[in-house]
Amino acid sequence: MALGKDYAWQDCSLARALEVVGERWTLLIVRDALYGVRRFSDFRAHLDVPKAVLADRLQKLVDAGVLDKNGHEYLITPMGKGLWPVVHGLARWGEGLHDDSLPCRLFFHVACGTHIAADGRCPACGTFVAPDDIEIRPGPGSGRRNDPVSQVLRQPHRMLAPIRTRVPVT
Amino acid sequence: MALGKDYAWQDCSLARALEVVGERWTLLIVRDALYGVRRFSDFRAHLDVPKAVLADRLQKLVDAGVLDKNGHEYLITPMGKGLWPVVHGLARWGEGLHDDSLPCRLFFHVACGTHIAADGRCPACGTFVAPDDIEIRPGPGSGRRNDPVSQVLRQPHRMLAPIRTRVPVT
Repeated sequence: MALGKDYAWQDCSLARALEVVGERWTLLIVRDALYGVRRFSDFRAHLDVPKAVLADRLQKLVDAGVLDKNGHEYLITPMGKGLWPVVHGLARWGEGLHDDSLPCRLFFHVACGTHIAADGRCPACGTFVAPDDIEIRPGPGSGRRNDPVSQVLRQPHRMLAPIRTRVPVT
Repeated sequence: MALGKDYAWQDCSLARALEVVGERWTLLIVRDALYGVRRFSDFRAHLDVPKAVLADRLQKLVDAGVLDKNGHEYLITPMGKGLWPVVHGLARWGEGLHDDSLPCRLFFHVACGTHIAADGRCPACGTFVAPDDIEIRPGPGSGRRNDPVSQVLRQPHRMLAPIRTRVPVT
């Protein structure tokens, strides 16, 4: 039974959003797509999610218009980029859950090099920073995972720019 | 098997957040708690979630520090209030999913009466508006559900202020 069916009667836009991104793994896949992961094999190497689950989630994200499938690649759409504030806000909230929690990634406004605040805005410019204008750099909590995708994502890189790994395409 | 166990190896604060709020129904419960729902029977009347699932989710939210149990009531904690930007952002994103989608609730900054923007800020004051400073009013998409909690929530009310319903306490 699809999750969507269960929430459908809840006349609330939050329920509608959760129909699309409320299933297990889905927001982690969206996060990876924002970080530049595009290939099935790379999502799989990074998330360690069972193949069938990953295929199901990717297809649903394509159906919902969050990802676009282009050959072997899944590209985040403008609608998908619209989830960045949620992904970022939820991650910052997650950092507050444990005293010893350190961010594994830090986000900088490309235009001015300033560290982006928890609310997704650039403290220097005062504007909300879109994914296209963000550089990702490793944070103090970085470095526990050693799969090829984690290694590539640990390098400073532009958000959305496709990552290049040596994970075999499956 | 707890969801948390599956995400635990993902060294990312987003995964940590999803360990707490990533299960089905959980964010809808948090939303209701922000809206002033406090009693088990009211959550149940509003969400139509099976009793056992609701009990499980509430207990996990108490264990995680998102809700405080006080007698028969579940109160949102400061940590729980920290989820407001995520709940609000996800709901606004959900509105964009369908062309005919109208918000069922609108949020206003109590201090100045201004409609709060999609990013959670007051356009007039320029500041982020905390849940304590928000009034909830019915929106153009309001009115499909007729349970006692929906009826009460349809009245303009301060966010966090406890709602009073005639749902029998179970």
